[in-house]
Amino acid sequence: MLPKVWPAVLALGWICLAVGAAQGVMALFSLAVGDGMAEVFGATCAITIVFGGACVLITSGRSFELRFRDAALLTVISWFVVPAFAALPLLAEPIDLSVVDAYFEAVSGITTTGSTVMTGLDDAPPSILLWRSTGQWIGGIGIIGLAIVILPFLKVGGMQLFRLESSDRSEKGMPRTREIASAVGRIYVALTLACFMTYWLLGMSAFDALNHALTTLPTAGYSTHDSSFGYFDSPSLEWAGTVFMISGAIPFLAYLQFARRGSLWDRIEPQIPTFIAVLVVTTLVFAAWLTIAQGVDFGTALTKTAFNTTSIVTTTGYASINYLQWGAFAAAWFFMLGFVGGCAGSTAGGPKIFRHQVMFRLIGQHTRKTIHPHAIVPLRYGRRGLSDEQIWSVCAFAFMYFAAFVVIAILLALIGLDLTTAISGAATAIGNVGPGVGPIIGPAGNFSSLPDAAKLILAVAMIMGRLEILSILILLMPSFYR
Amino acid sequence: MLPKVWPAVLALGWICLAVGAAQGVMALFSLAVGDGMAEVFGATCAITIVFGGACVLITSGRSFELRFRDAALLTVISWFVVPAFAALPLLAEPIDLSVVDAYFEAVSGITTTGSTVMTGLDDAPPSILLWRSTGQWIGGIGIIGLAIVILPFLKVGGMQLFRLESSDRSEKGMPRTREIASAVGRIYVALTLACFMTYWLLGMSAFDALNHALTTLPTAGYSTHDSSFGYFDSPSLEWAGTVFMISGAIPFLAYLQFARRGSLWDRIEPQIPTFIAVLVVTTLVFAAWLTIAQGVDFGTALTKTAFNTTSIVTTTGYASINYLQWGAFAAAWFFMLGFVGGCAGSTAGGPKIFRHQVMFRLIGQHTRKTIHPHAIVPLRYGRRGLSDEQIWSVCAFAFMYFAAFVVIAILLALIGLDLTTAISGAATAIGNVGPGVGPIIGPAGNFSSLPDAAKLILAVAMIMGRLEILSILILLMPSFYR
Repeated sequence: MLPKVWPAVLALGWICLAVGAAQGVMALFSLAVGDGMAEVFGATCAITIVFGGACVLITSGRSFELRFRDAALLTVISWFVVPAFAALPLLAEPIDLSVVDAYFEAVSGITTTGSTVMTGLDDAPPSILLWRSTGQWIGGIGIIGLAIVILPFLKVGGMQLFRLESSDRSEKGMPRTREIASAVGRIYVALTLACFMTYWLLGMSAFDALNHALTTLPTAGYSTHDSSFGYFDSPSLEWAGTVFMISGAIPFLAYLQFARRGSLWDRIEPQIPTFIAVLVVTTLVFAAWLTIAQGVDFGTALTKTAFNTTSIVTTTGYASINYLQWGAFAAAWFFMLGFVGGCAGSTAGGPKIFRHQVMFRLIGQHTRKTIHPHAIVPLRYGRRGLSDEQIWSVCAFAFMYFAAFVVIAILLALIGLDLTTAISGAATAIGNVGPGVGPIIGPAGNFSSLPDAAKLILAVAMIMGRLEILSILILLMPSFYR
Repeated sequence: MLPKVWPAVLALGWICLAVGAAQGVMALFSLAVGDGMAEVFGATCAITIVFGGACVLITSGRSFELRFRDAALLTVISWFVVPAFAALPLLAEPIDLSVVDAYFEAVSGITTTGSTVMTGLDDAPPSILLWRSTGQWIGGIGIIGLAIVILPFLKVGGMQLFRLESSDRSEKGMPRTREIASAVGRIYVALTLACFMTYWLLGMSAFDALNHALTTLPTAGYSTHDSSFGYFDSPSLEWAGTVFMISGAIPFLAYLQFARRGSLWDRIEPQIPTFIAVLVVTTLVFAAWLTIAQGVDFGTALTKTAFNTTSIVTTTGYASINYLQWGAFAAAWFFMLGFVGGCAGSTAGGPKIFRHQVMFRLIGQHTRKTIHPHAIVPLRYGRRGLSDEQIWSVCAFAFMYFAAFVVIAILLALIGLDLTTAISGAATAIGNVGPGVGPIIGPAGNFSSLPDAAKLILAVAMIMGRLEILSILILLMPSFYR
């Protein structure tokens, strides 16, 4: 059966209605603060709502039953089209971005990547800043939904491990998907509020606190200042940011699981201890190096490293300092950190912790089987065994991720970017991290000077990374349409 | 049972006797050409033969039965110790390398990597040049033996696919390992002679032809000139080099298989068509880019690209031109080519063609299974199905290779190398390619200016790459010794 387009159109319609409503709120906010953007947001609100309404109306009266092909189509179309509407306010004065720049900025926002082409953020109209942050926050919800509902359904890259049915079948009174979604949404809102209050109490203005809370929980990274978190120059804010970035990179279902009955061990999602261990070890190693090799005092080194390491590993993309000033080792270190990623089922991007766990278990198994060829070494993940299919999915994902990274890097180099920018740009886009490495797109840099073709490639790479590559790849296969 | 050290000592003894004999030949060669190195080679010949003889004598009278653990130990010890003896002549005047430089040069030679710390090759004593080439040629034999006998036995990274027993069990009159080894040895010698004759006829001096033949067949890359193959400035020599590099990167057992009876299809090793296709496509793409973007005429572009692409893909490491002069795209392209590798069972390094085949088949299977979840998609390699264990071995190898690359790159950056040198140095060493990317270790550069610590790390990386990582990894596991 051919995939049906209309479920995608219907879903897109509802998403656009939500985005349009958010633009309406921005128009009201603009009126309240008097930054002169009310008309712009009013107009884009109208365009977006008319489009969304039309999508909903032309598909009305059909019963909604999501099949596999429809889900894949819906996901890919939505992630390409919604940024176009989110980009509209950036086209108008005073921001006045080109079409490509505005689309890049919106894709980077909604995929929660956080790479920006905008400068002069400190003087930008508040409603535009809030709109960028809101886009990331909405994107974060979309990603959690994707990670909890769609990707496990599509079995993308081993995500079937996180299927709601299988993990919850053993529990009495299995919560239905809608109840889970609603609970996860409440956790997302509650954490955002907690983050806002914390930032505010620790010294940010209410506006800065709101914007940064909206971009911390989705591990997204847009800031209201060109110097990002470095603007506040506050260790306590950096530590608070570290904690809330981590809370956004933890599987949101784990919060529900943790609240259940049962032994602590059974309730802890296996990704979390590894994730925390990775953060602690990478922070301590780099902070030690900073202290020994660069003479930074250990307290400062620890704060700066914890914040910036967590920012890259969780794929948030804030920077509290230009860590590239510390030379080649720092560059290599932060480049490699972009290949870690947060936990699956969270708002974080990258290859994800559970895939590294499966890969390292595979190496361990291969090593043990080499030493003891007749040993039976089953692979386990948490309490469950891993099926061949799950392991293969993870391996296939890892190869696709690397292959996509290579192709994107080569395309960027072909356009004429220097080697460091091409390679780190590809890595940061597909990992939805934010900053790259090098003077151009590093933490102190900006994507604005790149050629348009590079920006479009990077925008596609961000969506590919967000949809874990396979969702897009299958749409390119002729057999998908048979 | 604990691994026994004595089979390793015995094998090491015989190898050292062979190396010592080769040093004796160099002494005679030096006398014949009168380059004054006869005493040096005589002395090192004596040292190496005394050591080798002692190893053989102290283990005499024991029956030789190779067990798994002994084979692993033997392999690793030999690849670390033999270069120490091969390095001896480089310590003396007029070459006068430091201990670290000489060991690096010898490891790079015997692992057939081809990275060099020596400059002024054009004026170096002929016997020293011949010794470098001979070391690579001997290394090439060692690698074929490793790939045909040891690695499949250890089941390293899916190499069990190439076990002699399994591939030959179906044939009548199964040839024994020794007969196969002898046939493969004759092919290696015959191809080297053919290469020598071709180079000579096409205009190299007999001495240059001999040296380059000795380093072409093992896809090794040492030259007698600082400007490598570029010295000869001859398209016909470049095309001849291309053909013979390919012949060294094809599985040597395939030559035997091809000579058998049966349909052509059954006799072609599945790696070969893919390998040739990769070379043709990468050459055409880059040559087209050179013509369009850089204005090089297509004939020259094709010759230069075919030679240098083949040199990197086969992990030989000759250069006929400084291809990095063409900018960032060329750098990214040749950097990525270093992650291809030749065919398993040949003298080439890198991840190897068959592993890419398995990985791409895994991606294809995952994509098809996503679109048609109930389809049964067995993975095949040639005529045979791939077992779960084989697929896992290949995946585990890929992850180990990448993890080792990351660790080595970070260590090199930690020492203070710039990002491009650190990353491309790690890639070129573990892939046994030869040149890196960037001004320091690129095709026009040299490894001599690197700090000693970097040279030692790279030397270990070359051996790790040569032994396909796992052989070394298992020796670090406590369970290996239980």
